[in-house]
Parts: sequence; C-alpha cells; structure tokens
Amino acid sequence: MPTVHVQLFKGRTADQKRAAAAAITEAVVATLGGNAATVDVIFHDIERHDWATGGKLWSDQPPAPPTPAAP
Amino acid sequence: MPTVHVQLFKGRTADQKRAAAAAITEAVVATLGGNAATVDVIFHDIERHDWATGGKLWSDQPPAPPTPAAP
Amino acid sequence: MPTVHVQLFKGRTADQKRAAAAAITEAVVATLGGNAATVDVIFHDIERHDWATGGKLWSDQPPAPPTPAAP
Amino acid sequence: MPTVHVQLFKGRTADQKRAAAAAITEAVVATLGGNAATVDVIFHDIERHDWATGGKLWSDQPPAPPTPAAP
Amino acid sequence: MPTVHVQLFKGRTADQKRAAAAAITEAVVATLGGNAATVDVIFHDIERHDWATGGKLWSDQPPAPPTPAAP
Amino acid sequence: MPTVHVQLFKGRTADQKRAAAAAITEAVVATLGGNAATVDVIFHDIERHDWATGGKLWSDQPPAPPTPAAP
Repeated sequence: MPTVHVQLFKGRTADQKRAAAAAITEAVVATLGGNAATVDVIFHDIERHDWATGGKLWSDQPPAPPTPAAP
Repeated sequence: MPTVHVQLFKGRTADQKRAAAAAITEAVVATLGGNAATVDVIFHDIERHDWATGGKLWSDQPPAPPTPAAP
Repeated sequence: MPTVHVQLFKGRTADQKRAAAAAITEAVVATLGGNAATVDVIFHDIERHDWATGGKLWSDQPPAPPTPAAP
Repeated sequence: MPTVHVQLFKGRTADQKRAAAAAITEAVVATLGGNAATVDVIFHDIERHDWATGGKLWSDQPPAPPTPAAP
Repeated sequence: MPTVHVQLFKGRTADQKRAAAAAITEAVVATLGGNAATVDVIFHDIERHDWATGGKLWSDQPPAPPTPAAP
Repeated sequence: MPTVHVQLFKGRTADQKRAAAAAITEAVVATLGGNAATVDVIFHDIERHDWATGGKLWSDQPPAPPTPAAP
C-alpha cells in the first residue's frame, strides 16, 4: 500500500525516473512487504531557485561536482 | 539531494524501516545519481482508519491475505 | 486516480471520517471523473498545538463557537 | 479548518477543478463540520511521466478506457 | 534538521524567495535550535486556479487590495 | 496566503513551537508580503526512527552535540 513521494531537483530524464520508479518499488516490496501493484511512486520536480539549504537558494550556489552513478 | 516520503500503514517494525531506508536510498542513488549522504527518507505511518480507497476506510475492510516478501 | 489528503484538527470520530471518505470520493468522481475504486483519501490529524494561524497556535486561542453541520 | 490537497493527473479543465473545489468543500463541511469559509482545497497536477504504479510510469501504460462521469 | 515547505501563490520574485529562505531559516534556528546548515526550505508555487477557499477558486475572486510589507 | 509546513524531530516544547510559529509568520510576511492573519504554520513531528539520512535512521546514529540557540 505504500505511496512514495520523491522531491528532487528538476532535470532528471524520463529514463532516470522510469528506472527510479522500478527500483524504489522493488526496494519497498522487498523490505516492507506488500504487493508491487499497490505501490505508487510520485516525483515532484523542484527548481533550484525553489530549494534552499542553510538559508541559501541552490540557484545561488555553485553546482556540485558531478557524482558518478552508484554501481 | 532527493527527499523521499513514504506513506505506509502503521505497524512495520523498526527493522523493516531500517532496511527500507537503506534500500530506497541505494535505489535513488543508483538511478538518479547524487550522493547517498544527501538523501533523506521520511516514513509517515498512517492508521488504517485514516486511509480510504474507493471511499471505504481500510479499517472497515477485511485484511488482505499475507503477501510473501519479495526475494 | 486522484489521491486526496485531508489535514484536520484531531478529534473527529471514526464515523465522521468514514462519512467524509465516502462523500469526498463521490465528489471527486462526480466532478473529475475516473473510477471510485482508484480514489484514495488519507486523513492527517493535526493537534491544535501544532497548527498556527496569524502566528498564534490554535491551542492558545479560545475555541470557536460550535457550527451546525451543513444540511 | 480542514485543508484538502488533491493530487491528480494533469489535464483537468478549470471548470472541473471549480466544480471539484465546491463539491469537496461541501462534502467536508457536511461530514466533518466547521465553516466552509475556512476550508482550503489545493490541486496538485501530476504529469503521467511523474506517477508510477506497480513500478511503471503511467506515461508508459496504455490509457484506461474512458469512464463516464458519475451521476 | 527541520525541513520547511512553503505553499504560496505563484508570482513571487526570486529576490523575495531568496529573502524568505534566509529569514525563515534564521527564524527556525533562533526558536527551534539546531544548525542553519541542516535547514531546508522548499517553495511550492500554487496557481490561483489551483487553490480554493470556501469552495471558490482564487482565480474567480477579485484580487485582494495590496498589503504593505511588514516592517 | 502562504501555508508553511515544518517537518522536525519530535521533542520540541510547546514554547518552542509557539515562538517558531510567530517568528516564521513574521519572516513570511516581511519577505513575501501578505497579511499575517492568512498565514498558516503547521508542525509535523517526526520520530528519529522515522527519518533517515544517508540510508541510516537517526535513531541509530549517535546524537549530535548540542547546538546553542542562535541569538
């Protein structure tokens, strides 16, 4: 039954979200039980000028160096 | 940077949430990139009498048959 | 497909939530279309000491006079 | 006092949302009590490529057959 | 650790959000304690046709008279 | 009109929330404009065993050293 909301910076591709939805659903079912068919995953794109950490918008911060995808 | 909110029925054990937090974080980093240290996962327990599907509270519905955990 | 989250003061009875879930689901289907079976309604109880309006917690405000239920 | 958040697929018309806001507010007041003037309804449009069920984005699923509006 | 979500009408400038993020973060740390670096503030723009009060969309209501900024 | 949701670890006192509600409301009005009477602030207490960062629940992490309140 779980519903999963993912708040993330805008800019991911449809392929990334497609893979994330599948992987998160699998992770949820493997650890919390239940039926994959009842798991919802909803992505909420957030602009960098709408997210601040430490009181400073991310659009005002230098971009982080690229991070290689986990294996 | 992603923040993940999981709405689920109350009743999972701390061990299940511990495993879910690790597995979801791994799934997020593997598919969306970024640094695991910046991923937050927040669980929101929902009582069965606070969640309705099809207009009917789950506390009024017969429990679903148990589902084996995914491999 | 709609999912409806209702944030409300703690204290409603199970019967009130049961009726609200049914009535909201009916309102959603009648106006937005879709299948009632796919509508979720989730209630989030909020304590009066966790909700402020005008910078003042509701637990610090005198209770509003009772309101008759709508017809 | 209730605040109602409706997460739904993008694409409903302004007229549908106008009717939904009125009908949901009426349903809330009729069942939970309170004053209609204090009920907020907020719609959150979700793209089909941002909502997955069963690990699969809705943009990757064949559209459901049309459902007649409820009476 | 607090995360702050601000739901507001669309239309504020980047400068307003920049100032709000800084001021809210300062308010949170001053009153709740913690480290400013761990406070997140996320803005969620809502269109006037997606927010109803009293069952009526704000896009259907005459605009409120301008309010002078607080000192 | 803004509505502010604050997700924070459980354990703050009523006095801290009272002060936070007032300070956040003042910060919102001072930077975003509007009328304080229309600002809502809602606190959502999160247990440390329901919040993970870096895939690890906070209940499994040693407590952070105390941070002095900001002036």
